[in-house]
Amino acid sequence: MTATPTPGDILLDLLVILVAAKAVAEIAERVGLPAVVGEMVAGVLVGPSVLGLVEPGPVLSVLGELGIVLLLLDVGLQLDITHLGSVARPATAMAVAGTVLTLGAGWVAATAVIHAGDTALFLAAAVTATSLGISARVFADLGRLDSPEARTVLGAAVVDDVIGLLTLTVVARVVTGEGLSVGSVAGALALAVGFLVVAGVTGVRLAAPLFRAIERLARSPGTPLALALAFSLGLAALADAAGLAPLIGAFVAGLALARTDQRDRVRRDLTPIGHVLIPVFFLRVGIDADLGQAVRPGALWLAAALLVAAVAGKVLCGLFAVGSSADRLVLGLGMVPRGEVGLVFAGLGLQQGVLNGERYGALLITILLTDLLGPVLLRRRLRRGGGG
Amino acid sequence: MTATPTPGDILLDLLVILVAAKAVAEIAERVGLPAVVGEMVAGVLVGPSVLGLVEPGPVLSVLGELGIVLLLLDVGLQLDITHLGSVARPATAMAVAGTVLTLGAGWVAATAVIHAGDTALFLAAAVTATSLGISARVFADLGRLDSPEARTVLGAAVVDDVIGLLTLTVVARVVTGEGLSVGSVAGALALAVGFLVVAGVTGVRLAAPLFRAIERLARSPGTPLALALAFSLGLAALADAAGLAPLIGAFVAGLALARTDQRDRVRRDLTPIGHVLIPVFFLRVGIDADLGQAVRPGALWLAAALLVAAVAGKVLCGLFAVGSSADRLVLGLGMVPRGEVGLVFAGLGLQQGVLNGERYGALLITILLTDLLGPVLLRRRLRRGGGG
Repeated sequence: MTATPTPGDILLDLLVILVAAKAVAEIAERVGLPAVVGEMVAGVLVGPSVLGLVEPGPVLSVLGELGIVLLLLDVGLQLDITHLGSVARPATAMAVAGTVLTLGAGWVAATAVIHAGDTALFLAAAVTATSLGISARVFADLGRLDSPEARTVLGAAVVDDVIGLLTLTVVARVVTGEGLSVGSVAGALALAVGFLVVAGVTGVRLAAPLFRAIERLARSPGTPLALALAFSLGLAALADAAGLAPLIGAFVAGLALARTDQRDRVRRDLTPIGHVLIPVFFLRVGIDADLGQAVRPGALWLAAALLVAAVAGKVLCGLFAVGSSADRLVLGLGMVPRGEVGLVFAGLGLQQGVLNGERYGALLITILLTDLLGPVLLRRRLRRGGGG
Repeated sequence: MTATPTPGDILLDLLVILVAAKAVAEIAERVGLPAVVGEMVAGVLVGPSVLGLVEPGPVLSVLGELGIVLLLLDVGLQLDITHLGSVARPATAMAVAGTVLTLGAGWVAATAVIHAGDTALFLAAAVTATSLGISARVFADLGRLDSPEARTVLGAAVVDDVIGLLTLTVVARVVTGEGLSVGSVAGALALAVGFLVVAGVTGVRLAAPLFRAIERLARSPGTPLALALAFSLGLAALADAAGLAPLIGAFVAGLALARTDQRDRVRRDLTPIGHVLIPVFFLRVGIDADLGQAVRPGALWLAAALLVAAVAGKVLCGLFAVGSSADRLVLGLGMVPRGEVGLVFAGLGLQQGVLNGERYGALLITILLTDLLGPVLLRRRLRRGGGG
């Protein structure tokens, strides 16, 4: 790879990614591991950590971003927003409990290793937020998205992203030395919740008549699909602007499009695009985790301590899903994978000098391991009959 | 747009591109223009020439490159390589005649305007090679890919790319002051023809058993599609390495995959991906043509002279399709659009000081106008009953 890759280089990168993704997914299928774990491992293998065939870069980021938008769009398309509303209480309780438990356990565990309370608190905050994408993929691959377990985990992960955003706002202002005011936190909260409410309500109301009109007016066969995708990209960009993860916007778009007459056709048309682009996202997780940089002596103890806290905090939070009939262990395991919020914390900490290279590496390893461990345990529990 | 766009910015760019592509394609459909022309005009509108909503960049280039790979893959999938072989003679005769006629007419026309024979020859050489993508799209959109006209034009465009590569090798060595040897030209020719023969023969022989094995071994539903795409990306990258346009490799991959049992399923699965990515390529043609930079006083006369020569040279070359029963005007019009080879010439000329800004702009305008005019005239002729 050269410093400035040509389009031809990127086509080769994509070739490597597609072949690696499918080869490892086929192996994972045979040994009973989730395909998503195979894809992340494939990313570690082809990325700079091991073989160095594919370097991280902006093109890969965008293709992966498109992949995760497609996944959450498809997840939203398979759900009924009213069913999702019925799990609002247990989902919120679980998200709040998971945050508090992980923050506490993470702080204790990290302090025990590094003897620096402030940095330990930063590390604990970094591993509080669950990633919406990874468990969604596990439930989707097993055809279990419409179970109470999946709905509760998805709802809790959305709440988690809002909480993660607030934590990040507070922490970012503290570590960059900007003044922390109630206004700035309330503003971030209002923007995030405002997006969810406004996009949710107007999206769900407007999507059906809008796409009925598009269907009536369109003469070119690709128009409804392209505009459904554009609708999702628009909500993803709005979510991004509101401080949330873009995939939350795509999820809301999916919930809205689920109520249109085009639902089945859009899902059918998106499936092959997803087969190609969704693995790019998960491989990128592995490619970006440059383990050669991350694994340093001393990082491993911290990573192990953080991992125990991160897994325990989330597994236990399942017990707080008040009023839910769901399998509590499935709920907890579904909350284990961490994602973008943690990576944003890691980047911020390194940049502001809160984390040295060793602690930054430990954080990356912890996040990657939750992403590998969560799906493995979740799939095993679901296959053994846990959950609807 | 900022200097370093985030993934969120690119998602917004894609949103603009999808909406603009479909809006303009719907309008084009109603006024009887080819959708591909609508898409290129949409590119000019949303790009830096007019509205400045979308800037050219590496991500857009790669997505467009994927789009054109998909288009030519799909075109190849719809053709039978033995039928294509039967038009080899008229296609080659037409390609050679088109090159000679355009070179002559272009040199005369450009010399008349700029009174500089060497530069005029460079400009004429820059507009000799036909682009495979644009006319292929027009034939495909009208469902006419399996006509003798389409096959002859596609075959001639492949030969044109080889001739264009040789012309470029000669011209590049002359203008950069490197010695021109028979060996360097023969080497380029051997590499290009070698790729076509080896990839064509082994690809066509190996694809069927290879994909039969993949089908038998695959357990994950996306595997055959992903590997078909990887196969095409691999041949595209090989074509690129042999000095040809990557889309030639994708075309060969399509011809090979057309002989597998997976042909229909691959085509069906590729259709929605194509609906999204193919327009990105054609919008990019418009986005990259920064007309604000290109249109300068004096450039327009040169562009007009070059355009007349470029269109006349290719329309007349249809007459040389020896032994073909095809409509000669359809053949000639199908050869009008120019593409990547011309743009490579333009970039080289500017970089080496052969072209000043004005003449560079004139060349860009000429290429863009052949891309707009060719499909309009071709579609009109096909609709009026020209060709099978």
